[in-house]
Amino acid sequence: MNGRINDAPAPAAELAARRNRVISGLPSAKLDCVLIAALPNVRYLTGFTGSNALAVLHASGTILFTDPRYIAQAAHETACEVRLSEKSLYKGAHQYIRRKRWRRVGFEKNRISFGAHAELKEGLSGKARLEPVVNLVEEHRMIKSEWEIEAVRLSVLLNSQAFSAALANLRPEMTERDLAAELEYQLRLHGADRAAFDTIVASGLRSAFPHARPTGLPLEADQLLLIDMGAMRNGYASDMTRVVHLGRISSEKRQFYNAVLQAQQAAIAAVRPGVKASQVDQAARDTLKAHGLDELFAHSTGHGLGLEIHEPPKLGKLEKAVLRAGMFVTIEPGAYREGFGGVRIEDTVLVTESGCEVITPTPKELAVL
Amino acid sequence: MNGRINDAPAPAAELAARRNRVISGLPSAKLDCVLIAALPNVRYLTGFTGSNALAVLHASGTILFTDPRYIAQAAHETACEVRLSEKSLYKGAHQYIRRKRWRRVGFEKNRISFGAHAELKEGLSGKARLEPVVNLVEEHRMIKSEWEIEAVRLSVLLNSQAFSAALANLRPEMTERDLAAELEYQLRLHGADRAAFDTIVASGLRSAFPHARPTGLPLEADQLLLIDMGAMRNGYASDMTRVVHLGRISSEKRQFYNAVLQAQQAAIAAVRPGVKASQVDQAARDTLKAHGLDELFAHSTGHGLGLEIHEPPKLGKLEKAVLRAGMFVTIEPGAYREGFGGVRIEDTVLVTESGCEVITPTPKELAVL
Repeated sequence: MNGRINDAPAPAAELAARRNRVISGLPSAKLDCVLIAALPNVRYLTGFTGSNALAVLHASGTILFTDPRYIAQAAHETACEVRLSEKSLYKGAHQYIRRKRWRRVGFEKNRISFGAHAELKEGLSGKARLEPVVNLVEEHRMIKSEWEIEAVRLSVLLNSQAFSAALANLRPEMTERDLAAELEYQLRLHGADRAAFDTIVASGLRSAFPHARPTGLPLEADQLLLIDMGAMRNGYASDMTRVVHLGRISSEKRQFYNAVLQAQQAAIAAVRPGVKASQVDQAARDTLKAHGLDELFAHSTGHGLGLEIHEPPKLGKLEKAVLRAGMFVTIEPGAYREGFGGVRIEDTVLVTESGCEVITPTPKELAVL
Repeated sequence: MNGRINDAPAPAAELAARRNRVISGLPSAKLDCVLIAALPNVRYLTGFTGSNALAVLHASGTILFTDPRYIAQAAHETACEVRLSEKSLYKGAHQYIRRKRWRRVGFEKNRISFGAHAELKEGLSGKARLEPVVNLVEEHRMIKSEWEIEAVRLSVLLNSQAFSAALANLRPEMTERDLAAELEYQLRLHGADRAAFDTIVASGLRSAFPHARPTGLPLEADQLLLIDMGAMRNGYASDMTRVVHLGRISSEKRQFYNAVLQAQQAAIAAVRPGVKASQVDQAARDTLKAHGLDELFAHSTGHGLGLEIHEPPKLGKLEKAVLRAGMFVTIEPGAYREGFGGVRIEDTVLVTESGCEVITPTPKELAVL
């Protein structure tokens, strides 16, 4: 768990199995091939981590299109056939598809731009039909492999270690920005490739804004302090929120905190295979309602995570997705009262055969510093 | 220049002038209104910095669509009319456009997904025609206002200060990752909101890969060390690359470095209003050619920057864009030899009426540490 570890890539056999799962679904989707444009999906299927790539999957194999900057990296990272395009990767892909005479070409309709679709369509010039697909790869990505579970676990652990290390360096004169800098520095020192998102540090009344950004204002004494942070490590995300209290605390704030903690625990208790995403959300809402705080909970209870910080399933009021073993979800109910402050408590949780495992090791009793 | 400064937003009058420039171009583009989906464009026109927004510009004014999480922030940040949509912002926008009976609706074809376009088209259900636009806002963004020039200048200065502070903490046992962590920590301490991109730290032979990522391997003695870093500050980017040498240096490496430095200086000398982007690129290439190194320069000479780290104009071989006063460009030629190492030297440069101003204050003589 330090900067000296070089993480191993996903095993080649696992990458091949992922591609095979997608390819074996092509006939029932009435597709000859599918063009994958979303980079996390390209990485999931090919292992390639560069910033400019397309993958085309077909029963005969997978072709990775990238540009010449990545020639060495692509050769190193993927077992797929690699084709280099100087200009547009879409041009490389449609020329290839035309040459192969593939007719029914799937594309990720929410992952490519209107302009890219137009370029593809023109390039295929009536020789092939473009068919929109949605969540074709993301569906598979929801269920993590053993290897992926370990990758997320590592990301979660280092995130918690970084949190503890940064809090040990807390000084009263720090601003929200100073503390955010310290948290992200500790993330890096503990082996993160980067923060998974802009770290949130919100002190006092600003904690009432769920999307507060760190300001240049000092951490306030005798107030709540909300920290929401995550790591990316070897491609995989973690996500945690903790609230601590600086200085003297009122009993009202302690009750408020404990109500959110109860809601978070109730939601965790609801997580198991076969349960609907909305039921987990409801469990948090019901508990907050018993405390008269449900009106102060304006977001959903959680989200999947993996190669991206936000993945399906979403744990919201109207979400019908059913939880399955191998999914990671965050559980993060909150309550926010203007002029008072806000509390959100968030863990990363793995759905297991028998229920769930809370991966985040950081304690949740309210720390008063 | 520290974390305690809270940056002022762009003046309201300037935001209004930006919107007016776009709106006054609608008739000649044969548009009644234009839907802006790219978040940096939304920010440029409305001042709103949230992560979920659309703007619709029409002669009668500008409407900002966002979700309820951002109600307070939107009210605070923008003078535009704000409409909240619980679900899809596109739905909010097409319902509004239909109600207003606007017929010719521009959309940013490379900035919205195929799926979003399909949703818009269905929602407008034949009552309006969607017309693709490209770089409609980006064209205006290329020329920076006085206020923006100061914002970029601040970003560049803090980036250079962070570089110096981190190098002062250089220790022989550091890994590439450790140094990247230190550089990004110093960025934050010096007032950056975040790093503008993943900081590149490439030691020894790894400097020969232009897109190297920091590894857990130690910084190598008697070798080149390449650092490419940038800040985002109050929304504006900076970008700098420096190469230093650790320990004893060969005369071959010194010559290699100086050849790239000459190429960089030649490109800077070519920057002035009226010059084509390709001519600046050519100046760098010609100098490298005189040293027999032009084959080792596999990327373009630079790019614009501002609210995004990569903006037009691109300074490449075939780029016909003409430089104008008020543009920011990076000047960053490089040469990369496998088994030897790489050198890239990059400044952020402002095109002025009389030529250009190199904004980056960090010295470029080769530092041997």
